Amino acid sequence: MISLEHTGVLLLLTLLAVGTLAQTQVLEASVWPWPQNIRVSPNQTFALNPSLFHFQYSAASAVQPGCSVLDEAFVRYLRIIFGTGPWLSPDRPDLKITVKNSLDVLVAVPGCDLFPEMNSLENYTLTLSNQQFVLKSHTVWGALRGLETFSQLIGRSAEGMFYVNCTDIVDFPRFPHRGLLLDTSRHYLPLQTILETLDVMAYNKFNVFHWHIVDDPSFPYESVNFPELSRKGSYDPASHIYTMEDVKTVIEYARLRGIRVLAEFDTPGHTLSWGKGIPGLLTPCYSGSVPSGSYGPVNPILNRTYEFMASFFQEISDVFPDFYLHLGGDEVDFTCWLLNIVSSYRKGYIVWQEVFDNDVKLSPDTVVHVWRETKPVPYAMEMKNITKAGYRVLLSSPWYLNRISYGQDWQKIYSVEPLDFEGSPEQESLVIGGEACMWGEFVDMTNLTPRLWPRAGAVAERLWSSKSVNDTKLAYARLANFRCELLRRGVQAQPLFVGFCEHDFYH
Amino acid sequence: MISLEHTGVLLLLTLLAVGTLAQTQVLEASVWPWPQNIRVSPNQTFALNPSLFHFQYSAASAVQPGCSVLDEAFVRYLRIIFGTGPWLSPDRPDLKITVKNSLDVLVAVPGCDLFPEMNSLENYTLTLSNQQFVLKSHTVWGALRGLETFSQLIGRSAEGMFYVNCTDIVDFPRFPHRGLLLDTSRHYLPLQTILETLDVMAYNKFNVFHWHIVDDPSFPYESVNFPELSRKGSYDPASHIYTMEDVKTVIEYARLRGIRVLAEFDTPGHTLSWGKGIPGLLTPCYSGSVPSGSYGPVNPILNRTYEFMASFFQEISDVFPDFYLHLGGDEVDFTCWLLNIVSSYRKGYIVWQEVFDNDVKLSPDTVVHVWRETKPVPYAMEMKNITKAGYRVLLSSPWYLNRISYGQDWQKIYSVEPLDFEGSPEQESLVIGGEACMWGEFVDMTNLTPRLWPRAGAVAERLWSSKSVNDTKLAYARLANFRCELLRRGVQAQPLFVGFCEHDFYH
Repeated sequence: MISLEHTGVLLLLTLLAVGTLAQTQVLEASVWPWPQNIRVSPNQTFALNPSLFHFQYSAASAVQPGCSVLDEAFVRYLRIIFGTGPWLSPDRPDLKITVKNSLDVLVAVPGCDLFPEMNSLENYTLTLSNQQFVLKSHTVWGALRGLETFSQLIGRSAEGMFYVNCTDIVDFPRFPHRGLLLDTSRHYLPLQTILETLDVMAYNKFNVFHWHIVDDPSFPYESVNFPELSRKGSYDPASHIYTMEDVKTVIEYARLRGIRVLAEFDTPGHTLSWGKGIPGLLTPCYSGSVPSGSYGPVNPILNRTYEFMASFFQEISDVFPDFYLHLGGDEVDFTCWLLNIVSSYRKGYIVWQEVFDNDVKLSPDTVVHVWRETKPVPYAMEMKNITKAGYRVLLSSPWYLNRISYGQDWQKIYSVEPLDFEGSPEQESLVIGGEACMWGEFVDMTNLTPRLWPRAGAVAERLWSSKSVNDTKLAYARLANFRCELLRRGVQAQPLFVGFCEHDFYH
Repeated sequence: MISLEHTGVLLLLTLLAVGTLAQTQVLEASVWPWPQNIRVSPNQTFALNPSLFHFQYSAASAVQPGCSVLDEAFVRYLRIIFGTGPWLSPDRPDLKITVKNSLDVLVAVPGCDLFPEMNSLENYTLTLSNQQFVLKSHTVWGALRGLETFSQLIGRSAEGMFYVNCTDIVDFPRFPHRGLLLDTSRHYLPLQTILETLDVMAYNKFNVFHWHIVDDPSFPYESVNFPELSRKGSYDPASHIYTMEDVKTVIEYARLRGIRVLAEFDTPGHTLSWGKGIPGLLTPCYSGSVPSGSYGPVNPILNRTYEFMASFFQEISDVFPDFYLHLGGDEVDFTCWLLNIVSSYRKGYIVWQEVFDNDVKLSPDTVVHVWRETKPVPYAMEMKNITKAGYRVLLSSPWYLNRISYGQDWQKIYSVEPLDFEGSPEQESLVIGGEACMWGEFVDMTNLTPRLWPRAGAVAERLWSSKSVNDTKLAYARLANFRCELLRRGVQAQPLFVGFCEHDFYH
C-alpha cells in the first residue's frame, strides 16, 4: 500500500447516514456545498487510472450518448479531475489497490435539450463501492450536480495517484432557487467573465444566473427591435454591448451547467440609459415651467410608452427561455400594467419587494424578492408578511456581496437562516430560495472574481445543504479546501485567512 | 487640423507657475501624482511619431549611453507610451501639426550603478515647447520620475495619433520616503507579483518597497547561512520561498525603477516561523512546570541566540544594500542589543512605534514607524511625541490598505495630512514620509492588485504632491483617469465608481 497523503481535510461532522440514526464519525471528504447525506469509508480506497477512466451511460439510463448536457459534462469533468497530465498510472500489482476505470451514470427520465426550470429535480445518489461506481438521478440536472460532487471527492496522493474513498451519497437541494446576481450596467462585464462565473456557479451548485443586464448607467443589451437602445445607451456600442449571439451563448453555456438565466430589465425606475435610445420614454423633469434637461422614470401618461414596452418585453420574452422574468420595480412606485403585459406572454415574474410594499395588485403566483435589510421592516419580518399574504419569496438582504468589510465576512453570510421568521410550515414552504447579489458600483472584471469567490459559496451552501449544516468552525476547513480546489481549477478566488494552497494561483 | 479627442480630463486647478504668482487656469492634463508646478498650454499641441520617437541623452548630460538605469527606462517607456502598434504616422502635411521625434534627457550628476538612497534627489524639470523637448534632473532617479510624468502626458486622438500639449513642469517630492509594505509571510507572493507591483509603484512615484518578508506564519527567505529557516519555516520549500537569486532580482528590478528595498525581519516577536529551523531560538511556554509545546518570542537568555542573531543579521546587512533595515519590534517589549548589532554593521534602522513607546534607548538617528491609530495615543499625538524627542518618523496608521470598507475609501486615505499635529517647523522636518501597508491576513496574489490599485495611489499623491493638492473632488477625475491608464498598461486596478475605460481590462 503506498502512502496516501490526503488533500481532503479531516472533519468531525454529524452525519445522517441513509436510513439510520444520526451518527458522528471522522470523515475524510471535503465537498462544498455539503451533501444532505454522506457516508465515507476512508478504510476502503479506490484508485482511478486517468488514462482509462471515463464516464459512461448506464444501459438502463433514459438518456444515452448524444445527450448534449451529459456528453459535454463528461468531457468537462474529466478535464477538471485529471487536468492534462502526465499522470502516474496506478496499474502496478504491488500497490494492492482496486482500480476503477468508469463511473456509470443512470438518468431516470429523458430530456437533454430542455432548459432547467424552477421545479426541475436535482436530486442524485452517488455510490462508490467495490460492487458499483454509479451516479443515479431523475434528470440530467441532477446528474450534473452528482458529477460535481464526484469531482470534489477525488484526491491525489503525493506520488500523483488519483484516488477516492468508498462513499455513499444521497443528495438534493434544500431550496429550488439558488441564484447569483451580476450587474452588467454599472460596469460592463465581458462575455468571458460571465462564462467563467457560470463555471464557478456550477462548482457551487448555484442554479440561477440573475442577469441584471441594464440599469441607469448603461444599456449593453443589443435589442433586435430597438437597436438604438444600446447604440446610444451603452458605454461603447463597439465594445461594451451584448449582441444577440452573446446572449444566446450565455443562455446555452448556462443550460449545459444546469443554470437558468433570469433576465432583469428593471422598470419603471433605473431606466435613465433607456431614454437615450427611445426619445420621449422618460418623464422630463421641470425647473419651474421649463424642462430641466434631466429625467425621471418611464413616462406612464403616453400611449407610445405602452406600445414600446409591449413590443420590447415581447422580444425579451422570446429571447430568454426561462419561464420567469425579473421586472425590478425597486425604489419607485410601481404600476400593474407591465405585469399584465408580461403575463400575456405566458411568463411568470419576480419583482423586488417594493412592489409588494406599495400594495400593487399582484397575481398569486408572483415571486417577491426581498433585498432591504431593515426598512420598511427587518427582512425576517418582510419574509413573514409576504408569505402570510401567500406569495413566494426570495431572500437577498443579507447577501449583498458587493458590500465588503474587513475580515472573514463569509461567516456572517453563512450564518443566515432564511426560515428564521415567525411563520407556519405553509409560509416556510413559500420560501423558494435566495440570491447572492454582486452589484456593480465598485465591481468590474478587475475585482469581480476574488470578491465573489469563495464568499458566494457561503450562500450556495446555505441554500443547498441541510439547515443543520451551519457551524462556521466546521465549515472553515472545508471552505478553505474548496477555495484551494477553485485555484487548482484556475479561478482567482481569494483566501479566507492566513495560509497557502498546494496549487496557488498563477496567471 | 484633425480633431483631437483628448482622453485627458478637463481640470480646473490652482497652479503655481514657476516664478510667477499662483494662477487658476483650465488645464488639459492628467498626471498622478500631481506635479509641484505645472503649466500646460492646450492651444499648442505636438504630435509624436511612434516609429521615430526616441529618448536621447543630451550632449551636456553627465550620464550617457551605457547608463543601465536610463538605457532600460528609455526602452520601457517607449513601450508604455506607444505599445506595439500598428501606429498612424502623423507625418502628413495636411495635419499642420508640429511633429516631435525625441525627448532630450540631461542628468547633472554622474552615477548609474548606484542604489537610490533616502536622500537621493528626485527633482526634475520637463519642458515641452517648440524650442525644446527636454527633461532635466540632478540624478538618474529624478530622470525616472520625469519619464513617468512624460508618459502620462501623452494623449491619443480618435484617429490614433499620439500628441502632447505644450507643457512646463518643475517637480520634486514633498517627502523623501514614500513606501509600500507587502507582507510575504501570511501569504506567499510569487516573484512575478512582486515585480509587477514594483512597476506600478514606479507609475505612482513610490520609492521604497518595504518587504515584510518573514513573520509568524512562514519564513520564505532562503538564508545562505541558515537554510533550515526556510526549509522548515516556509509553507513549501520547493515553491514558496525566495531564493538568493529571487532576492537579487527584486533588488535590481527595484533599483532600475528608483525604488529602495527596505527589508524587515521583525524580531523578537512575530518569529514563530523562525523557531522551526533554529531549535532553541524561541522561548518555550510552560504549562505549570511542563513545556506546553508552544513558543513565545526569541529567547533572550541564551548566548547562542545572540550568536545566531549576529550572524543572521550580518548576512541580511550584506544581502540588502539599502542603508536601512526595518527591525520590527512591534507588539512586544524590545531590547536594545539587536540595535547595537545592526549599528555595528554600519546600517541605520527603522523600528515600529512600540520601541519608542517602551522607552528603549535609541540612537538619535533612529527612524520610528507609526502604525497604531489610537493607542497609546492618537497617531497625530504620537507623531508629535516622537518628533519632540528628536527622532525622524514615518506614518502608516491611516494607510493600512488591507483594511477595506464599502465605497470610495480612497477619499479617506487621500484626506490624511501627515503634518497635521502640533509641532514646531523643526519637528515637521523630522517627518520623512510614510508608507501604505498591505498586510497579508486576507490578501494573496489573487486579490492583491485590485485591492492595492488605485487605492495606494491616494497615499502616493499625498506623499509626493504639494500639501495644497488635497481636494478629493478634483482628484476623483484624475485618479479615475490614472486608473484607466493603469488598465491600459495591463494592471488589474479596480474601479473607483460607476463607469468604464476605453481600455478595459481583459486577461
